Amino acid sequence: MDKGRILLAVTGFHPQRWHELLSAEREVVLEPDGPNDPSITYAVVWKQRPNLLSSLPNLRAIFSIGAGVDHLFQDPSVPQVPIVRVVADNLSRHMTEYVVWRVLDHHRQGALYRAQQAKKVWHEPQQRVAGDISIGIMGFGQLGRAAARALLGLGFCVNGWSRRPASADDVTTFHGESGLIPFLNATDILVVLLPLTPETQGIVNYDLLRELRRRNGLGGSVLINAGRGRLQRDADIKRALDDGTLKEASLDVFETEPLPKASPLWSHPKVFVTPHAAATSDPAHLVQPMLDQMNAFERGEPLQNLVDRAAGY
Amino acid sequence: MDKGRILLAVTGFHPQRWHELLSAEREVVLEPDGPNDPSITYAVVWKQRPNLLSSLPNLRAIFSIGAGVDHLFQDPSVPQVPIVRVVADNLSRHMTEYVVWRVLDHHRQGALYRAQQAKKVWHEPQQRVAGDISIGIMGFGQLGRAAARALLGLGFCVNGWSRRPASADDVTTFHGESGLIPFLNATDILVVLLPLTPETQGIVNYDLLRELRRRNGLGGSVLINAGRGRLQRDADIKRALDDGTLKEASLDVFETEPLPKASPLWSHPKVFVTPHAAATSDPAHLVQPMLDQMNAFERGEPLQNLVDRAAGY
Ligand SMILES: NC(=O)c1ccc[n+]([C@@H]2O[C@H](COP(=O)([O-])OP(=O)(O)OC[C@H]3O[C@@H](n4cnc5c(N)ncnc54)[C@H](OP(=O)(O)O)[C@@H]3O)[C@@H](O)[C@H]2O)c1
Ligand SMILES: NC(=O)c1ccc[n+]([C@@H]2O[C@H](COP(=O)([O-])OP(=O)(O)OC[C@H]3O[C@@H](n4cnc5c(N)ncnc54)[C@H](OP(=O)(O)O)[C@@H]3O)[C@@H](O)[C@H]2O)c1
Repeated sequence: MDKGRILLAVTGFHPQRWHELLSAEREVVLEPDGPNDPSITYAVVWKQRPNLLSSLPNLRAIFSIGAGVDHLFQDPSVPQVPIVRVVADNLSRHMTEYVVWRVLDHHRQGALYRAQQAKKVWHEPQQRVAGDISIGIMGFGQLGRAAARALLGLGFCVNGWSRRPASADDVTTFHGESGLIPFLNATDILVVLLPLTPETQGIVNYDLLRELRRRNGLGGSVLINAGRGRLQRDADIKRALDDGTLKEASLDVFETEPLPKASPLWSHPKVFVTPHAAATSDPAHLVQPMLDQMNAFERGEPLQNLVDRAAGY
Repeated sequence: MDKGRILLAVTGFHPQRWHELLSAEREVVLEPDGPNDPSITYAVVWKQRPNLLSSLPNLRAIFSIGAGVDHLFQDPSVPQVPIVRVVADNLSRHMTEYVVWRVLDHHRQGALYRAQQAKKVWHEPQQRVAGDISIGIMGFGQLGRAAARALLGLGFCVNGWSRRPASADDVTTFHGESGLIPFLNATDILVVLLPLTPETQGIVNYDLLRELRRRNGLGGSVLINAGRGRLQRDADIKRALDDGTLKEASLDVFETEPLPKASPLWSHPKVFVTPHAAATSDPAHLVQPMLDQMNAFERGEPLQNLVDRAAGY
């Protein structure tokens, strides 16, 4: 089999580095070129234009420039070829940093210390130990498991929630609809690392947040969402913060991105905002594994990290 | 041997919990009672009054309520009995949390994101990977080694500096005066976990900070001090921040504590202040090991975690 040509189709960021690195081994067609091109074998995409992929008569596989593939399925006409998503140590490590950073900033009372410093107040608040805190990882997949390991290493208790039954050393696991409420009831700090699918859209709503454990003296529960914005209802998070259901939140993702200036989350004193930057796909680490997969595929080997289209992730 | 009585002598915080927990097994005399008391065998102390310990004719061992013992040696008349300091998982874990929290907040650009949020700016800055960053642990003892393990787990490179030669898996170690400059030259984020001794007092000064690696594009080096305030020169840190030698600092300790309102560090935009709270000695975790040591000592077993008086820590 010949070396298949690649269509690179991204929106929202500059594809230059991806283009350069992919071009080292293969011919790359850059959008807007490419529609209907019979010479194209692979598509490397992030939020591609609708109907673009279905126009390619000889497309054999799609590579998502991200761990999540909801951006791809925005286009219902995505053809029935295998879809490869990103699974990479570099991405997991990056996400683990974000999760540990945010968990520790809430646990170690960063906002309180910053407020005290602004008033030049020297005061040591009560500080709980990590072993008293349960972190609930909602979406216990590649990223969630990596984060769990780091949190366990710091002495936190960890719960995990997934679609199918799962197990992991030292983690209390829950799964499916029937496991959700028990999972939430045992969780102080909720870390959302779910994919966005028809089942998970809007799942992080007020009713769900009400189920988090809010123990006396623990100062309320905390939400960290580094999955996707449309998993959550922004307005419900604000409501939960305002009525004390939530103590604080760290949000990397939002229903609409960039977060509109009019959103009350921007200036909410209990919210920490990052611009969908928890774990960025870095071409320096991700392109070579993509090229390796294409080479292996052309030698007749199976593709890795395939998306389950029925499940939607 | 009878169960020795304990003198509890602390300043700066309320000894109630320590008193209660120690009293569960032994008779406890609470300062200001106690001077000259021949029935006292052990002293449990934090910043005890000068000449108090030397007045106890039958004192057999001193227990410091902290990992550091500089507070004890403020009194030059401390008698020549064994001094036990705190070495405990609970304390190491607490310090590791602080170090990882501060390292991640600097590494993941917390200050920049907070400033962007205040202006409602949605912008993803360049983000380095942990593997590009070297954390230098200055004072590679009980606490430094525990922090190093957690940082290695997150993918950071770690250097350690100690008085005597040392080794640890995956850590580049340096020691003694001759190792100091090479250690600093290979360090991006300096974490100070030294004890305060005549040799280390004032060591974190401007000249030392100048030796930190300040690589192009890495945005400057960072100082985190969770050891003791008198290891550093507050004014030198301000100078280093103001001229760009340092990018940011997290300071848990200061030359004078509580940090005086007049200190420019309180309102310095590049400084994060905590009130000597990185790792607090928690009686719930530390009293039982102390009592266990007293019991073992009375059975003729050696005391653990002894201070080397010549070295001063
Ligand atoms: N903010 C960022 O910068 C950023 C960066 C990268 C990724 N992400 C997001 O992170 C997500 C997770 O990535 P990953 O690589 O960890 O994905 P993954 O390995 O596919 O893991 C997804 C997890 O979610 C669970 N899940 C899916 N649907 C569920 C449902 N209906 N009910 C309960 N659990 C469900 C899965 O359960 P099973 O284990 O049973 O399959 C699995 O545990 C991505 O989809 C993406 O949206 C965000
Ligand atoms: N901020 C807080 O809340 C807090 C809480 C607890 C402790 N602390 C501070 O943390 C310090 C460290 O505690 P630890 O339990 O890790 O102590 P440790 O086990 O005694 O370790 C001290 C380290 O410093 C090194 N060191 C001492 N003097 C040195 C010198 N002149 N030059 C080079 N290295 C030197 C030692 O070298 P060797 O290995 O060769 O002996 C050792 O590696 C305590 O002394 C205390 O001041 C602060």
